[in-house]
Amino acid sequence: MKLLETTLNQISPSSSEWREKAAQRIETLIMPHWALGRSLDLAVDVAGITRSITPDISRRACIVMGADHGVAAEGVTPCPQEVTPLMMAAFTKGGAAINVLADHIGAEMVIVDVGVKGDLSELYNEGKIIDFSIAQGTANFAKVPAMSREQAVASIEAGIEVVNNIKDKFDLFVLGEMGIGNTTASSAIVSLLCGLSADIVTGCGAGLDEPGRQHKAQVIRAALALHQPDPHDALDVLAKVGGFEIGAMAGVMLAAAALHKPVILDGFICTAAALIAQSLNPDVADTLIAGHSSVERGHIAALEKLDKNPILNLELRLGEGSGAAMALPIVDAGVKVMKEMATFADLGVSLS
Amino acid sequence: MKLLETTLNQISPSSSEWREKAAQRIETLIMPHWALGRSLDLAVDVAGITRSITPDISRRACIVMGADHGVAAEGVTPCPQEVTPLMMAAFTKGGAAINVLADHIGAEMVIVDVGVKGDLSELYNEGKIIDFSIAQGTANFAKVPAMSREQAVASIEAGIEVVNNIKDKFDLFVLGEMGIGNTTASSAIVSLLCGLSADIVTGCGAGLDEPGRQHKAQVIRAALALHQPDPHDALDVLAKVGGFEIGAMAGVMLAAAALHKPVILDGFICTAAALIAQSLNPDVADTLIAGHSSVERGHIAALEKLDKNPILNLELRLGEGSGAAMALPIVDAGVKVMKEMATFADLGVSLS
Repeated sequence: MKLLETTLNQISPSSSEWREKAAQRIETLIMPHWALGRSLDLAVDVAGITRSITPDISRRACIVMGADHGVAAEGVTPCPQEVTPLMMAAFTKGGAAINVLADHIGAEMVIVDVGVKGDLSELYNEGKIIDFSIAQGTANFAKVPAMSREQAVASIEAGIEVVNNIKDKFDLFVLGEMGIGNTTASSAIVSLLCGLSADIVTGCGAGLDEPGRQHKAQVIRAALALHQPDPHDALDVLAKVGGFEIGAMAGVMLAAAALHKPVILDGFICTAAALIAQSLNPDVADTLIAGHSSVERGHIAALEKLDKNPILNLELRLGEGSGAAMALPIVDAGVKVMKEMATFADLGVSLS
Repeated sequence: MKLLETTLNQISPSSSEWREKAAQRIETLIMPHWALGRSLDLAVDVAGITRSITPDISRRACIVMGADHGVAAEGVTPCPQEVTPLMMAAFTKGGAAINVLADHIGAEMVIVDVGVKGDLSELYNEGKIIDFSIAQGTANFAKVPAMSREQAVASIEAGIEVVNNIKDKFDLFVLGEMGIGNTTASSAIVSLLCGLSADIVTGCGAGLDEPGRQHKAQVIRAALALHQPDPHDALDVLAKVGGFEIGAMAGVMLAAAALHKPVILDGFICTAAALIAQSLNPDVADTLIAGHSSVERGHIAALEKLDKNPILNLELRLGEGSGAAMALPIVDAGVKVMKEMATFADLGVSLS
């Protein structure tokens, strides 16, 4: 709890002074007023986060948090739970989507086990997966709380520790997850923290049909009625219906915010984690850049709660950090324009 | 005329066989069905254009076509015409937005004068701008046709020649333009080829206010009434209300289609050029990938006529090829996923 408290106390909002400096710099560049639209807004966001109008975001990590979910036993997902450790192993071999996309954006993979069901010890020993495993998956929240309050804190602190351990090597974090069943936990969180019914925020995950989706929403509704999580207590929400990787992603966001390093959010699960982080300290939201709007139906509500306008809308629904990775080149473009373009003064001319 | 006719005869539609092969390959990759959405559609598009499921699109040129517009004299733009040669010179020095973005995507700049008003001869001599200049800008189409039919053909053939001269060096073309007044010509073209009123498809260009926009629409309406371009004759449309750089961009598209090399479209002006190309040979549209949806109000109608779904929607309105360049990393992402991801067979497992 001490690490979490310390981190929460280190977070400050984005710097309006540096945002203003960035906007002023952009107005001097040789193009009509704000003609590169939202890419320039992103440059201003990065300036405000990093306190620089020449930010270096070239050293990027792609952090993938993996964990399992007891609620998968309720038939809320078409994928067997064994897929989680299989995909974690695949990430270490380099053939998954996020490996290809991390390579595309020049990011280094950081793969973390915060509670996968299965034995990944060989991959820990080889240094390919970082071991912060809290348990062999959460408990089935259809019956009992997903985890204890202590485990909820431990999951967040795992994310904080991961970032603190690599903070000198990286300027920016692309964030993703792997965990069969985790759209169910995420829908429960979004339902609570956005004050929306489970049916509205529950989607088809990795490929449910409509009756499957309705069953999933019913499982969530029943669990919320059973456990009565306090929507004003993010740790209670995380403990009763969350997941270890969701807590760990919230921890990454809190640590990155304390360090003034941007985080690119992936899809629905990552955004649910952001709501947990926001609930713990509202200023963390300033550090987060929403990569994309996914097809998962609760995502838009969660992004609105964060007051975020996603960069891409490409009907993505994979996770792993894939949408965040795809969005990063747009952030890069805005930042490079801010840093590298000539000014009217350089040319000795005016456009109008 | 011979080069244009030869090129038109060499164009064939996208290969449905290679599109099908690409879709089959993607279904074997270790992720749920089409979980990377539109980025996978783009991979299929590139496979169909290039006739390959392992396309190499790494050698990319950013072609910027520059020309001036006599109609600028009608007060249809807030920018003085002198900005065209100034920006053409800026492109050769490296400080413009498109230079920064070309560098970002690893593209080589190819800067072409097809009719800029001003003396760029020093930059021709230094090999920094390619000279295909047809005239010192078009005539003012508020009074007389913008150009002769022969000049319209020459502008298209300039674009074809540019591509044919560099075809062995590049796999893909990012396409943009520079020309004060060219949204006016583009709105006239889109009005004719989409069958929509000038008012609907006329936007604010580089920064007109609403009375300015209405004046611009009135200038276009009057010109269309005066010249009566035949909407079924693209060369007549281009000659009466077009621009040299618009013809040249259409030529780039036709040549690229004949060579089976993808073209990433930029915004409104580039899309107006695509309508000219489509009118000359409908199959050319298969070769075109729409980079983004701009704020210019006629753009959506033009994209619909082309049956294109733009990749980005970032409130861009700069031109130069900037939006096409920003979109390219998404195309790259889809293509890399198709080429590089592991298959279920590689892993010896199934996700469900």
